[in-house]
Amino acid sequence: MPAESGTAHPADPGPGTGADPGTVRPGGRTARVRAAVLRAAGDVLAEQGFAHLDLADVARRAEVGRTTVYRRWGSVTALVADLLVEMAETSLPRTDTGSLSGDLAANAALVQRTLADPRQGALFRAVVAAAACDERTAAALRRFYEVRVAEWAPCVERAAARGEVPPGTDAGTVVRAVSAPLYYTLLTTGTAPDAPAAARAARAACAAAAAGVYVTGP
Amino acid sequence: MPAESGTAHPADPGPGTGADPGTVRPGGRTARVRAAVLRAAGDVLAEQGFAHLDLADVARRAEVGRTTVYRRWGSVTALVADLLVEMAETSLPRTDTGSLSGDLAANAALVQRTLADPRQGALFRAVVAAAACDERTAAALRRFYEVRVAEWAPCVERAAARGEVPPGTDAGTVVRAVSAPLYYTLLTTGTAPDAPAAARAARAACAAAAAGVYVTGP
Repeated sequence: MPAESGTAHPADPGPGTGADPGTVRPGGRTARVRAAVLRAAGDVLAEQGFAHLDLADVARRAEVGRTTVYRRWGSVTALVADLLVEMAETSLPRTDTGSLSGDLAANAALVQRTLADPRQGALFRAVVAAAACDERTAAALRRFYEVRVAEWAPCVERAAARGEVPPGTDAGTVVRAVSAPLYYTLLTTGTAPDAPAAARAARAACAAAAAGVYVTGP
Repeated sequence: MPAESGTAHPADPGPGTGADPGTVRPGGRTARVRAAVLRAAGDVLAEQGFAHLDLADVARRAEVGRTTVYRRWGSVTALVADLLVEMAETSLPRTDTGSLSGDLAANAALVQRTLADPRQGALFRAVVAAAACDERTAAALRRFYEVRVAEWAPCVERAAARGEVPPGTDAGTVVRAVSAPLYYTLLTTGTAPDAPAAARAARAACAAAAAGVYVTGP
């Protein structure tokens, strides 16, 4: 199943984690340890929330020595920050369907599937909640979204080149407009957005962009 | 200063709180106690977050007996739920400007000012974070938004009657579409949305609604 972050799905370690058992190469063990520790951290966040994250517990779940975890990450906020870095690293690339409406629909579907996935939805809620009371987590979360927005922004730039949206349309604002109603639903109602909501979010952003709402000043 | 929730602003107790000193009427003391306790609870949430909310501390800040607070609210989640009830009760009524674009701009400006207010922005972040790990708070937060959406939905119904949006446009979805990018910015970046963002949110929802994006199926 495609997902905004490959690492956050238990059955799919995602590309670049180096978690494939049997892989022996320089850095292989380090990468395996990181993958196991971040997976365990994500499990705790999704199941119990940030307040219950504890380095010793994560080490036990990951079957990694406590000393290794303490030496490498040092704090739960550093661990969550690294989890967000890995989630950005292993996120799926953007789709290029040839039209803005198609591209934004693909983006919305990806975000919706991520948030509707029980583990990933809970993980994002936990990380957003943690960011409300911890500046380091907030900074890591901002970087995660910057990476994702930068990945998808070319869809809007290409649409501008094709004349689908006016020149000067701010690509990042359009991409964030697609995600906004989906996250808003999850965070304010606790219920994951469904597929029709994703289609609506994409169509709304597309209509507003075409109408020139996201054109930035000179 | 107008604000989505009058009670949440220290200098403005808002209508219906009964907090006016010198008011003597049946129920006056009970209402004053509630206002003082909920104000103290809001202060702690805004300053320190949900994890630091403690009934004894709230009683001390509100200068109310601990027994009264324990008897009346019993738990921090009940206290937060009541705070959300009071925030909904004392929220400002909707604006009727005669056009959907004007009404949604007024709604967006109200939400933006609320989220940009240091105390209220922090309060909403804290409550959303608490809702991620506590079902009772999540239910109270849902009811708060249901009340606010119901307050503003007639703007869209009137716009449909005037022919500004197609028949069958879901009013609640339009109202939530205005708030979504503003909350999304606050919750994922930690920075409050600014006035241009509010104007953009209103125009985007208006353009999408006019294009028929929020028409529900038969």
